[in-house]
Amino acid sequence: MLSPPPRKLGVLLFDEFEPLDVFGPVELFGNLPKHYTVSFHAPQPGPVTGAIGTTVLAEHPMGEDVDILLVPGGMGTRRHIHDEEFVGRLRQWGLNTPLVISVCTGSALLAAAGLLEGYRATSNKRAFDWAASFGTNVQWVRQARWVADRDRWTSSGVAAGMDMTAALIAHLDGDDTSRTVCDMVELEVHHDPTQDPFA
Amino acid sequence: MLSPPPRKLGVLLFDEFEPLDVFGPVELFGNLPKHYTVSFHAPQPGPVTGAIGTTVLAEHPMGEDVDILLVPGGMGTRRHIHDEEFVGRLRQWGLNTPLVISVCTGSALLAAAGLLEGYRATSNKRAFDWAASFGTNVQWVRQARWVADRDRWTSSGVAAGMDMTAALIAHLDGDDTSRTVCDMVELEVHHDPTQDPFA
Repeated sequence: MLSPPPRKLGVLLFDEFEPLDVFGPVELFGNLPKHYTVSFHAPQPGPVTGAIGTTVLAEHPMGEDVDILLVPGGMGTRRHIHDEEFVGRLRQWGLNTPLVISVCTGSALLAAAGLLEGYRATSNKRAFDWAASFGTNVQWVRQARWVADRDRWTSSGVAAGMDMTAALIAHLDGDDTSRTVCDMVELEVHHDPTQDPFA
Repeated sequence: MLSPPPRKLGVLLFDEFEPLDVFGPVELFGNLPKHYTVSFHAPQPGPVTGAIGTTVLAEHPMGEDVDILLVPGGMGTRRHIHDEEFVGRLRQWGLNTPLVISVCTGSALLAAAGLLEGYRATSNKRAFDWAASFGTNVQWVRQARWVADRDRWTSSGVAAGMDMTAALIAHLDGDDTSRTVCDMVELEVHHDPTQDPFA
């Protein structure tokens, strides 16, 4: 069960993560400091270089106690998904976390870690078949901006993570809170998870 | 005049910059590596901590030769705008750069640096009056998602930077290139700069 706010959002970073997968959701959660705190985590704490040469400092290791775990996608997933130690640590962390969410091909990592077994999920539309090749009992939904299934929320590619986050904030903190933070950052979001112009 | 592609995009970082002001545009420019290279710059090269505890490595100083300079907003603008050395360096850098663009309250910094004299410009709608108090001959446009005036493009708050960037890429590289990268990151953008739901 989720704790009352402020809830700890832990963001997993890894080499070649996709910057907007991270900073779209972080912009929304992070502008609600009464509701969420944000920390960045990596397999080894320190600077992590994502796509586009973006180097971000992750001060925390994987596995720390958080309320919500955010797993981004990016080309780095292609390598890390075959790293058994990384996937094993992600599995343990996910099993110990009340709510696990992903953006883009982050859902492939969750599936490989067994964290989507018995769940409905989606992923990036340009890497869908690849992502959907992971997991054994995942109900992959091709046409979805995001899929919310109990304690697993997964979004489609990159920018879709912001729509999912706005919906999750509305779910946890109410429509007004979600609308307030979207207005604050001048973001118009899709409210219908089945409306997916990129499917 | 702008060089032919690949063009160098230099992104200015400073304490308490707003992450999505940076990583929205960077996501679009950076996924077109044949058209743009991206580098991060700061008053002092090294790690720069933006809002929401986001620490990003800026490997380059201010003032390096770039084709396009991107200036984000964020609470840090409130302090830096009174830092004469910072504003003076920004002025020199901007005067030597073919195209200067800003997101959110980044336009206040540009105005304070005298880089918007004789130009039309916009800014974040929640900080508009503050931003519009800088510069002496700036035609501030309150209702605009972004304003494109010759070699100065300025956007409204945070998420508006992505719409401006998509329009700028269309302007420089053609509609198809802009549409391709927006599709790649599953981003739906506003195409009309005068359509501003947050004004």
